[in-house]
Amino acid sequence: MSKMKDGSTNGSLGEEIVGRINELAAISETPEHLARVFLTQEHRAAADLILGWMRSAGMRADLDAIGNVCGRYEGEVAGLPCLMLGSHYDTVRDAGKWDGPLGLITAISCVADLHKRGRRLPFAIEVTGFADEEGVRFASTLLGSRAVAGTFVESVLGTRDADGVSMRDAMVQFGLDPDHIGAAARAPSELLAYVELHIEQGPVLEGLNLQVGVVSAIAGATRLAARLTGMAGHAGTVPMLLRRDALAGAAECIVEIEEFCRTDQDGLVGTVGYIHATPGATNVIPGQASFTIDIRAPSDAHRKLAVADIVRRIEAIAKRRKLALQLDVTHENRSVPCAPWLKRQMSEAIAKEGFRVFELPSGAGHDGMAMIDIADVGMVFVRCRGGISHHPDEHVELADADAGARVLLRLIEDFRPRDAAG
Amino acid sequence: MSKMKDGSTNGSLGEEIVGRINELAAISETPEHLARVFLTQEHRAAADLILGWMRSAGMRADLDAIGNVCGRYEGEVAGLPCLMLGSHYDTVRDAGKWDGPLGLITAISCVADLHKRGRRLPFAIEVTGFADEEGVRFASTLLGSRAVAGTFVESVLGTRDADGVSMRDAMVQFGLDPDHIGAAARAPSELLAYVELHIEQGPVLEGLNLQVGVVSAIAGATRLAARLTGMAGHAGTVPMLLRRDALAGAAECIVEIEEFCRTDQDGLVGTVGYIHATPGATNVIPGQASFTIDIRAPSDAHRKLAVADIVRRIEAIAKRRKLALQLDVTHENRSVPCAPWLKRQMSEAIAKEGFRVFELPSGAGHDGMAMIDIADVGMVFVRCRGGISHHPDEHVELADADAGARVLLRLIEDFRPRDAAG
Repeated sequence: MSKMKDGSTNGSLGEEIVGRINELAAISETPEHLARVFLTQEHRAAADLILGWMRSAGMRADLDAIGNVCGRYEGEVAGLPCLMLGSHYDTVRDAGKWDGPLGLITAISCVADLHKRGRRLPFAIEVTGFADEEGVRFASTLLGSRAVAGTFVESVLGTRDADGVSMRDAMVQFGLDPDHIGAAARAPSELLAYVELHIEQGPVLEGLNLQVGVVSAIAGATRLAARLTGMAGHAGTVPMLLRRDALAGAAECIVEIEEFCRTDQDGLVGTVGYIHATPGATNVIPGQASFTIDIRAPSDAHRKLAVADIVRRIEAIAKRRKLALQLDVTHENRSVPCAPWLKRQMSEAIAKEGFRVFELPSGAGHDGMAMIDIADVGMVFVRCRGGISHHPDEHVELADADAGARVLLRLIEDFRPRDAAG
Repeated sequence: MSKMKDGSTNGSLGEEIVGRINELAAISETPEHLARVFLTQEHRAAADLILGWMRSAGMRADLDAIGNVCGRYEGEVAGLPCLMLGSHYDTVRDAGKWDGPLGLITAISCVADLHKRGRRLPFAIEVTGFADEEGVRFASTLLGSRAVAGTFVESVLGTRDADGVSMRDAMVQFGLDPDHIGAAARAPSELLAYVELHIEQGPVLEGLNLQVGVVSAIAGATRLAARLTGMAGHAGTVPMLLRRDALAGAAECIVEIEEFCRTDQDGLVGTVGYIHATPGATNVIPGQASFTIDIRAPSDAHRKLAVADIVRRIEAIAKRRKLALQLDVTHENRSVPCAPWLKRQMSEAIAKEGFRVFELPSGAGHDGMAMIDIADVGMVFVRCRGGISHHPDEHVELADADAGARVLLRLIEDFRPRDAAG
């Protein structure tokens, strides 16, 4: 509850938000390591808590057919198209408590503030808490927002979790009807836009001493799996010039990928996160080395050119070293540009609240990647400490949570639908 | 048995040797993957087989206090100092059948040939089959030859195998007295030299189209364990210039180590055989990377300078990348130079048998590393296919096994003890 007497939002939203972040974080598989995944009792408990917050904020609130929490705050008249706000309330394992919940809880607090002041707008506001964005349990991401966007893929229902439970069975056990997921889908005509507030999950805002930033685009990503095969051999008996060392080849590729991305000027990032060399003994020259490559860029065209260039360089390294190369694209996501008209309104809101306007891409994926199929997408980032995310050390200062809330509330109150916005 | 009628050795030794190699290889933990380790029933069965061969070759033969098979063929009079020949008869797991057994079986065949011809020499010949060179069961190498050299370390008896059985208990169960290992030790005065024939385990002889080679030295080795610690982060959200990627740092080290050794002119080899990056996910910048380094050179002084130089380069990479570095020496073996007078006699034997004389270092360790404490050491290498060893594909051509036997027999027959050799 806001502690301010005058009905204004200044300072008060942050405190309520941080309190609720902590309350929600207490709902976890284990008390030591925050983990809250799809279709579990923690999902249920979190949903109940959030639905309660939504209702106190003056919203009609319920679970939808996939287990998303959906709250609706009517506009000046009932049944108007909505500005949809949202984020997710599932987590990775050993998670931080801000990734997802901050955007959802902030949106609820903004609506609560309007409600408290009796303020109705010429459009409805909906707040959606997506039940599965991280994809931890069934290794398939964006399940909640895909259901809302009508792009949920039925075949995913057959996927099994680590205990062998299928998503279909888990839904039934949770009390949802897996044959009725289509009911969660929304029509484009119902939505004026989808706007999400999220922690940055990176160090850029902190490095610039900024509390908030306008997201320019959610970067597209290409993931590749590389396997180099040379010839295993005794570490003592094979002279250097006769070696076909797969790990040395992989190392050269890693250095090359890093250098290629480091010298890029357009937000390209490249990461080798996993490597494995076999046989993997101190005294054996590795005969095989496998590694992953993750390439992201705000522009799809730029990313595709970069991937092609990196592939050519890896091929050249393999050829020169007489290593066999297997290189497969394992995952590809288009980039999702934020709508210019929403970026403009977001920038105005930021400026009006007294912050410097700064645009940055999102390297991480978000529910907007699914929502783009039914609505224009806008995002605002809130600074997090040290750029740390997906880790218990993930942290947002109360003042920054408050800054994000002030910006989001200002955006909502000043919001003009696309047609009106011109 | 030799098939030749005239008592000469030409061609015949190779066939007998290959037949016995196959006979011995049938003694294995499992039929699919050759494995014969210390103080097992396979050790016992192999020892019995070899002792039988030794006795048919006219030797007095028995197990010693550590489980080595020891055969003695007296010289012109009984009790003369011996030229000791030998190699090991234990194997790694999923081994080839030549590594160790070739030298042991060849030595027995050479003695059998002398015996058949009634030839006695002005010195005794002993053939020792070392019971544990590879160190597979108790993770401690050269146990057999250390016992013979009197350098067996008592504390090793407390070591336990993967099933929790101590070496002490395994010895008792095998029928040996762990408090009596000292009885296996030989006095330097009993030995004129220790000479071992072994497969090369590398591709050098094959590359030069040579069947045999004189070993110049058993290379010394330094092994290091390196750990770089940077900062884990989201593969999408941390710009390249703000990263402290531990795996990228490790990759640069690997490339640097390879380049440093590749440009060395004195037989230096460097290998990174193991690497592990954490957390090890496709979409996470590695916060930590661990890897091993194995550096070998025929000269200790050269190896030590090289290690120091490599350490400096790794430190510089870590510093520039703002990575914390932990670097520990985990293992260090001095090099064992082969005695010049033995190399000379070996070269003469090779030349007399019509082969080109070529010297090369041994990058792999051998029992000579222990035997050097009580005798001058000489070694001859036999070519193996593709340089492959410690693998089921390990292979020696019959003609090459025969060539090795002819050289060893010639060396024995022409052998002059050090004093006589001048």
